Amino acid sequence: MSRPFNFSAGPAVLPEEVLERAAADMLDWHGSGMSVMEMSHRGKEFVSIYEAAEADVRELLAVPEGFKILFMQGGGIAENAIVPLNLSRGERADFVVTGVWSERPQKEARKYCDVNVAASNADTGHTTLPDAGSWKLSPNARYVHVCSNETVHGIEMHELPDLKALGCDAPLVADISSHMLSRPVDWSRVGLAFGGAQKNVGPAGVTLVFVRQDLLGHAMAHCPSAFDYKIVADNQSMYNTPPTYGIYIAGLTFQWLKAQGGVAAIEQRNIAKAKMLYDFIDSSDFYVNRVATNCRSRMNIPFFLADESRNDAFLAQAKARGLLQLKGYKTLGGMRASLYNAMPLAGVEALVSHMREFEKEHA
Amino acid sequence: MSRPFNFSAGPAVLPEEVLERAAADMLDWHGSGMSVMEMSHRGKEFVSIYEAAEADVRELLAVPEGFKILFMQGGGIAENAIVPLNLSRGERADFVVTGVWSERPQKEARKYCDVNVAASNADTGHTTLPDAGSWKLSPNARYVHVCSNETVHGIEMHELPDLKALGCDAPLVADISSHMLSRPVDWSRVGLAFGGAQKNVGPAGVTLVFVRQDLLGHAMAHCPSAFDYKIVADNQSMYNTPPTYGIYIAGLTFQWLKAQGGVAAIEQRNIAKAKMLYDFIDSSDFYVNRVATNCRSRMNIPFFLADESRNDAFLAQAKARGLLQLKGYKTLGGMRASLYNAMPLAGVEALVSHMREFEKEHA
Repeated sequence: MSRPFNFSAGPAVLPEEVLERAAADMLDWHGSGMSVMEMSHRGKEFVSIYEAAEADVRELLAVPEGFKILFMQGGGIAENAIVPLNLSRGERADFVVTGVWSERPQKEARKYCDVNVAASNADTGHTTLPDAGSWKLSPNARYVHVCSNETVHGIEMHELPDLKALGCDAPLVADISSHMLSRPVDWSRVGLAFGGAQKNVGPAGVTLVFVRQDLLGHAMAHCPSAFDYKIVADNQSMYNTPPTYGIYIAGLTFQWLKAQGGVAAIEQRNIAKAKMLYDFIDSSDFYVNRVATNCRSRMNIPFFLADESRNDAFLAQAKARGLLQLKGYKTLGGMRASLYNAMPLAGVEALVSHMREFEKEHA
Repeated sequence: MSRPFNFSAGPAVLPEEVLERAAADMLDWHGSGMSVMEMSHRGKEFVSIYEAAEADVRELLAVPEGFKILFMQGGGIAENAIVPLNLSRGERADFVVTGVWSERPQKEARKYCDVNVAASNADTGHTTLPDAGSWKLSPNARYVHVCSNETVHGIEMHELPDLKALGCDAPLVADISSHMLSRPVDWSRVGLAFGGAQKNVGPAGVTLVFVRQDLLGHAMAHCPSAFDYKIVADNQSMYNTPPTYGIYIAGLTFQWLKAQGGVAAIEQRNIAKAKMLYDFIDSSDFYVNRVATNCRSRMNIPFFLADESRNDAFLAQAKARGLLQLKGYKTLGGMRASLYNAMPLAGVEALVSHMREFEKEHA
């Protein structure tokens, strides 16, 4: 029996093949007699899992040698403190505010450094992307923080900003949580990128950090050792016991993605999936998406019923048709369909079909 | 086919019933059509899992109403910073050093406060427990930190210290990582207890924190929000996305433990298992455990071959007999058998049988 389609924004759908492999391995990984959960993180079995996961994600995203890949804990919200603790040196950092997930880090960073909000789209209700040419960058910022895909508002930077072209030498810090591995990354524009695993990678509780090596070693005196990037890097993410099972699932997802043809191939499918849903929404007066067309997210698509009194009926009928977790973010309301890598085209087709029928019934 | 016996110090053996349940639930938890990994942490399915886990651990350990139970990330090593960030107020804290896992926190805490080492067993090579009457406690300490079971050295406080009886009003902070849920806790003696899940509870990546409510709300200004106990408590451990799958496995382990008769029943079995191994070691000249008899751990039993040149042969033959992960901690060498809740008596019998036969062959 085929499973329902799960549109959760995160934790989110995982490839069925990954879950099947995990279930089959549960009591005995590769004849070891152990579940992956039961392995010492320093034993050869888990070290082989870790090394394969790291190598696979490096290959998938073409991460250059000059970047360390860290597997940490705490998710994006912890990183909002960990980044300034490691990079700000108590000086200045710039933030581009485009929604919830860039508003929160600029607030958190005020504990550690002088914060400059270089741009904000609050005046448009977070439906646009401020043109990089208009950003008021500081001459002395230790880094410039962006959230390159806003999960709540459904805004995506389809290109990472080129700070050098803007005359800015500071490293770009990008929160890529909700579109990591959905498309290639231009590392020449990045100083540090981080993301929680619970969208495109694996279970909540694993954070991936990609950090240029010259940014290591500048942590503030009160940075917890477990969150000092240099200490984490020097210990191959095993300064504290890593979230071993989550890393194993991430590794299975990386293998799945390679089997799908890699990031360039999945990007094409993500473009097609998102286009199908946006095209339908735009063709209808019954549904609306308010995000400017040049920055609509391929991963998270919020939409609203013109008559919001029908929200509950929409969700109930969706669930009855096997379309799960479509409710919008608490502060925004409406609906949100997250179309991560593991969402097949058939799921989008089923959603559009439901939307079309619901409209026919109620329009 | 029965699985081998896994003596890892952590991540460690889990109950077979828990792993079987997890495998069966993997693609579809309770007819939800989702893996637990794929559920929104705010959806009713996961919230029910979370609430059951919290209620079960509260019942198992008879945690009083006045304590909050938090599910955090980062493990004991992160807590070594998080505790002083929350409790020290930048003032003084006392530490009782009994091995690796109490030596490290006193070093980490120096980033945040004035540290007093109130006692140390370093002079005996971490084989004894300094008598509480001899501890040089500060009159003004914000807390007194102990590690009540030293995983590396195999030392256990069979009673938590009664600070009030010592004339000390500071709250006791106990790192209970490696014997959590192996025995009851006298909460009247505790201000805060924490432990990584990866010994008796579930996969690495979940940290349990039990904290008396009056200790909340005193975090230092540069404490990351995700690690501010009050913020975590006020948000039912969902200020950041919690490690949902690990919490689910922890919940299954709590259910298993209840089915075993609870903590008092498992304590009796743990006493019997440890006695069997210590009795055998003490009866032999071929093996030695150097820890004073009044503080030998029931959970982690390090032992050494009188002739250490036979270590590799001992480990290889153990593995051939299905006895895994017996190698001692890197700095200590020798062997270590961890006998957590999920290790059946049959595992200890098999280990003793191997030790007896190996001795017969090589003595």
